[in-house]
Amino acid sequence: MSDIPAKTPIWKAIAAALRDDLAEGRYVLGDRLPTEAALAQRFGVNRHTVRHGISALVKEGLVRTRRGAGAFVAATPTDYPLSRRVRFHENLSAAGRRPEKRVLTIETRAATSNEALALNLPAIDPVCVYHGLSLADGQPIALFESLFPVRRLPGIATALTQHSSVTEALRAAGIDDYTRASTRLTAVRASATQALHLRLAEGDPLLRATSVNVDGQGQPVEFGRTWFAGDRLTLTLEG
Amino acid sequence: MSDIPAKTPIWKAIAAALRDDLAEGRYVLGDRLPTEAALAQRFGVNRHTVRHGISALVKEGLVRTRRGAGAFVAATPTDYPLSRRVRFHENLSAAGRRPEKRVLTIETRAATSNEALALNLPAIDPVCVYHGLSLADGQPIALFESLFPVRRLPGIATALTQHSSVTEALRAAGIDDYTRASTRLTAVRASATQALHLRLAEGDPLLRATSVNVDGQGQPVEFGRTWFAGDRLTLTLEG
Repeated sequence: MSDIPAKTPIWKAIAAALRDDLAEGRYVLGDRLPTEAALAQRFGVNRHTVRHGISALVKEGLVRTRRGAGAFVAATPTDYPLSRRVRFHENLSAAGRRPEKRVLTIETRAATSNEALALNLPAIDPVCVYHGLSLADGQPIALFESLFPVRRLPGIATALTQHSSVTEALRAAGIDDYTRASTRLTAVRASATQALHLRLAEGDPLLRATSVNVDGQGQPVEFGRTWFAGDRLTLTLEG
Repeated sequence: MSDIPAKTPIWKAIAAALRDDLAEGRYVLGDRLPTEAALAQRFGVNRHTVRHGISALVKEGLVRTRRGAGAFVAATPTDYPLSRRVRFHENLSAAGRRPEKRVLTIETRAATSNEALALNLPAIDPVCVYHGLSLADGQPIALFESLFPVRRLPGIATALTQHSSVTEALRAAGIDDYTRASTRLTAVRASATQALHLRLAEGDPLLRATSVNVDGQGQPVEFGRTWFAGDRLTLTLEG
């Protein structure tokens, strides 16, 4: 995959290769990137082109340059383990990041036929829809839309306004534990609205996860979709 | 996520919403889409705009229209289970698709430091690199680059030229069974070369999986990266 296609400017291909290096953990936070001369040799281009590629990463906040000292890694994608017990706050804290959730909207409405099916509800049963933004160290990393069955969890709408954490809101609504029953993953383009929230460009790649969480009896308690910013997050799976 | 952003033409937003419906299994192969009148009502637009959105899906091969009969689902994304024993042929056959692999290149070269680390090899040990294309029913669904440790698997380069299936090539090289030890997932933009192979547009979203497969003793036998076409494939995880 290392051919540089004619249609892509070379500096963009260099930025993409370095972005990949960061995403795969070749460099960690604070590491100095190889010198311009070394990168020029690696990519077979002149130093001006390397500088152009690096400046794209500086604009994205991934790299910082210090006069005379070179380019340093300013941000690396967060590793996010996708285990049966996914807990946003625990996951980010374990990765050494400060977790934060921001509520965009909380509303109660009738479930669509698809949503009713996923939550094992009668058609048009009411669902509470929590739409929000997840941040790591103040940087937006994901948008999410979580649906909760209101008849099964009567206190959920109030609990969500009091706790930004879904785990805590579910506990307040009487669900002590829940696990992920199934997840579907694909890659999609960011819409203009999503790009605005995630501070990306429209059309940028997002990793979309659709999952159902169930309580101890196997009853669905949450049907959620999450759109992760591709450049800022890597889902990790053991085995 | 249903707001229609000002920057996106409405017909594009409609195409995206219908593409999502297909990706989430709301309609299955052969289903008739709702009428233009019903879709116009759902999206709050006129029928001309709906027709424009549907024609985009026709161009992508997702939908076919029949004069007087309406629009029908012509293709839906393939479900691809990501279990510990991932086998491309078995997975696709189970989804009712015809699996096919095409070799792009097979070469032996020194491992980079990253690759040596992933395969638990001494630096610059030789690796056999198998670069190819995976298809379902003749449609490209993924590009992959798989690396094999040559000293650990002396017969692998020859075996890969004889068997397009990695499972069969590994068996020929003496590995009867292997399992996925770890996987990393993120979303990336298709490069021009990738887009050409996958018949997508440059910049389209790809789901990238990086994984290590190990033999019964836990020794790495394959380090691979796969780029799945986001619109054509959904990775599924149980639990």
